[in-house]
Amino acid sequence: MSGEDAPAEQQNAVDQKQETKAAEEPKAEPPKTEPAPAAATAEATATPAAATEKVPEEETFTYRALVLTGYGGYDKVKLQVKKGKPALKAGEVLVRVKACGLNFADLMARQGLYDRLPSPPVTPGMECSGVVEAVGEEVTDRKVGDKVMVLNRFGLWQEVAVVPSTHTFLIPEGMSFEEAAALPVNYITAYMMLFDFGNLRPNQSVLIHAAAGGVGIAATQLCKTVKDVTVFGTASASKHETISEGGVTHPIDYRTKDYVEEVRKISPKGMDIILDPLGGSDTHKAYNLLKPMGKLITYGTSNMLAGQKKNLLAVAKNWYHQFSIHTLSLIQGNKSVCGFHLGYLDGEMELITQAMNTILDLYKEGKVKPRIDSTWHLEQVGDAMRKMQERNNIGKVILNTEPMPEEEKKEEPKKEDKKKDDKKKDDKKKDDGKKEEKKDDKKKEEPKKEEEKKEEPNKEEK
Amino acid sequence: MSGEDAPAEQQNAVDQKQETKAAEEPKAEPPKTEPAPAAATAEATATPAAATEKVPEEETFTYRALVLTGYGGYDKVKLQVKKGKPALKAGEVLVRVKACGLNFADLMARQGLYDRLPSPPVTPGMECSGVVEAVGEEVTDRKVGDKVMVLNRFGLWQEVAVVPSTHTFLIPEGMSFEEAAALPVNYITAYMMLFDFGNLRPNQSVLIHAAAGGVGIAATQLCKTVKDVTVFGTASASKHETISEGGVTHPIDYRTKDYVEEVRKISPKGMDIILDPLGGSDTHKAYNLLKPMGKLITYGTSNMLAGQKKNLLAVAKNWYHQFSIHTLSLIQGNKSVCGFHLGYLDGEMELITQAMNTILDLYKEGKVKPRIDSTWHLEQVGDAMRKMQERNNIGKVILNTEPMPEEEKKEEPKKEDKKKDDKKKDDKKKDDGKKEEKKDDKKKEEPKKEEEKKEEPNKEEK
Repeated sequence: MSGEDAPAEQQNAVDQKQETKAAEEPKAEPPKTEPAPAAATAEATATPAAATEKVPEEETFTYRALVLTGYGGYDKVKLQVKKGKPALKAGEVLVRVKACGLNFADLMARQGLYDRLPSPPVTPGMECSGVVEAVGEEVTDRKVGDKVMVLNRFGLWQEVAVVPSTHTFLIPEGMSFEEAAALPVNYITAYMMLFDFGNLRPNQSVLIHAAAGGVGIAATQLCKTVKDVTVFGTASASKHETISEGGVTHPIDYRTKDYVEEVRKISPKGMDIILDPLGGSDTHKAYNLLKPMGKLITYGTSNMLAGQKKNLLAVAKNWYHQFSIHTLSLIQGNKSVCGFHLGYLDGEMELITQAMNTILDLYKEGKVKPRIDSTWHLEQVGDAMRKMQERNNIGKVILNTEPMPEEEKKEEPKKEDKKKDDKKKDDKKKDDGKKEEKKDDKKKEEPKKEEEKKEEPNKEEK
Repeated sequence: MSGEDAPAEQQNAVDQKQETKAAEEPKAEPPKTEPAPAAATAEATATPAAATEKVPEEETFTYRALVLTGYGGYDKVKLQVKKGKPALKAGEVLVRVKACGLNFADLMARQGLYDRLPSPPVTPGMECSGVVEAVGEEVTDRKVGDKVMVLNRFGLWQEVAVVPSTHTFLIPEGMSFEEAAALPVNYITAYMMLFDFGNLRPNQSVLIHAAAGGVGIAATQLCKTVKDVTVFGTASASKHETISEGGVTHPIDYRTKDYVEEVRKISPKGMDIILDPLGGSDTHKAYNLLKPMGKLITYGTSNMLAGQKKNLLAVAKNWYHQFSIHTLSLIQGNKSVCGFHLGYLDGEMELITQAMNTILDLYKEGKVKPRIDSTWHLEQVGDAMRKMQERNNIGKVILNTEPMPEEEKKEEPKKEDKKKDDKKKDDKKKDDGKKEEKKDDKKKEEPKKEEEKKEEPNKEEK
């Protein structure tokens, strides 16, 4: 997951001959950039085996890639076509990507708030699933045809990715590519927080913020693998039924109630473990909500994300309220404060692999299973990001590398057909785990109103 | 262990009719206060059963107690005789104390640096062992004659202690009273740090500061109960042989070497767990020495202790260097910072009892065993404290409630006989586990020189 490991070609994407198309404009306004010519897309879907002419494969080989072209809103992530087959170094594999996972860090990165992504132009994406299409020298643990999931610091939102073989994990029998793309970041994050820092044991209580988000759902499932663990989960009321079914003992609607009060009502002494993706003043609340010997594990600053572009007020507020702790307070409180972020766990593939192996065992035993909120084409990455950022997802938001059918693209710009169009897309998507997107449609009808609300603190899905 | 639970009589000790004798003057100067009359001591050793006259037992009952009469040097802890049998409330037991453990918190408390001890006059002491002599109403789990070890917030350095029965633990077969007095604070502290906050697992590395101290030895033994744990331990060179035998893989002489460099030489990536009793700038060093997913557990500020009276420079230095951490640094480092102090774990007797039960099981299996450095009479509490504060101990310093033989007391004030006297005392002490105290004797010969050295940072035994 280190920067050195990342495929080199994505760094100089703009130098290559390429076709650029803005990712689908999520505000339902006519896109300002020209649509990708059908030819480019057709080229991109050609398999390397099809390149049988005299021209060497290295030159005819093309693939589509999402590229962050600059910091800003959803439209800054553009779909481009790259030419030239990436060369493999020793220990690397080339993966034909089938599905990619979206993470909060990707949203932060787009706004320039995540320092683990190199400067634009660059391909984002920390996780994907696909099929090994070529292996470099010294690779002994993977072979062509292996179905794998991949974890990398960035560079996975494209049809072809080159990564060290140690960053790949074999997909177990029965797991779909969408599930495989949904699993690595969320489950490893939840697992290491709960079982390494958190040291979760029977009869303990855990507060999970954003319990309907990717990490939230993974953490809830993992909590249920330990006897008599009580899970408190925050989410907006409309998601309570789902998260309750998933294992949240006490769902709390943080939008209408003070979650600290709600927790204290049920558990006056507080919590054994609190997972905090919010940052800012919520970290202070979490600290105060800990029992003696309690562990606060903070793993993000999603409170910084307010609106699709960098919101300086939200960022400043988050910095202003940033939690800082003296050891004397920790000693007198018998408390633990931990920070976790998979993106900074460079070079710790051994730890990550251990966690992954345990998670895959739990998957095989039927104890954990990624929940897919929705699956989107690469062209729809803007909508996908919006859905996540506006906390309208329950579970994981996935990108599918399958080319978007022509008829969908043509209908795209017509605002009046938007709702119907979305319905159609849903019908056509091949994602088994996909969710109804009625709520999302509703959201699209009121884009102005949503924008006005952007100052409101966002405490959900990560 | 809460203040409310403490026996009331020790709070108003000065109001009672009592005989006061300064604890043995450790500087070998003639004591300024008058020695305790033999009669008072004789009274103190009379068992309650001996009070058969008409005078009610509540009035004839006397016992000796150490009392902190004000903040300051070793001579502030004085031996007094108290009259009147303490009344038992429901749930309490009266323990005839046999041995008491010394802890760093007691030394801090004497200087006014530990806020869990009420203001003087007050009896210090967080742990002891003894025999249950009476039980209050509603006590079902203890009976007269039970041999117990006791844990309390304070008030245990006396011949008779009244505590909630929940603060007592049955002494297992074969454990001496000295061992039983040495076990609770050090082993519970080490256990909860390593296995609750630390989540110690096979193949991990642990840095133990003050590895020859009470907590250090307990932690080393507990580390050895986990497969392939590598222990780095700091101690002065003269103690290396002993701590190596005890299980320290890499002893480091912090007095002559930079321990950070030494650790990095052997383990370039750093440590999985660091136990930090020092505070101040050493906490910063510890944080930087952590591996990703590493845990720093700070449990004291012994760097504050320099000299026998409060050293304002050392205290200020410690405050100035006090470690403070932002969550963003924790997130980017994937690190955990925990604070632990048993004295602040009020009302968590359930957690403490769980830990104690596991420790006693390990004791029965022969996997842990308290190491007694030396045993002292109550009259010698000053010397005992000095030995610990000057880091001349290897293992636990214990007080024994057995009255000091008359001949030892008479010889006491003669400076010229001091060395011989100490030798005699050693010979007479009944402590099986006691250590040769040659180093201590040597120290006493050079009290001036030692005082001059008091600014030197102290990084040992806690």
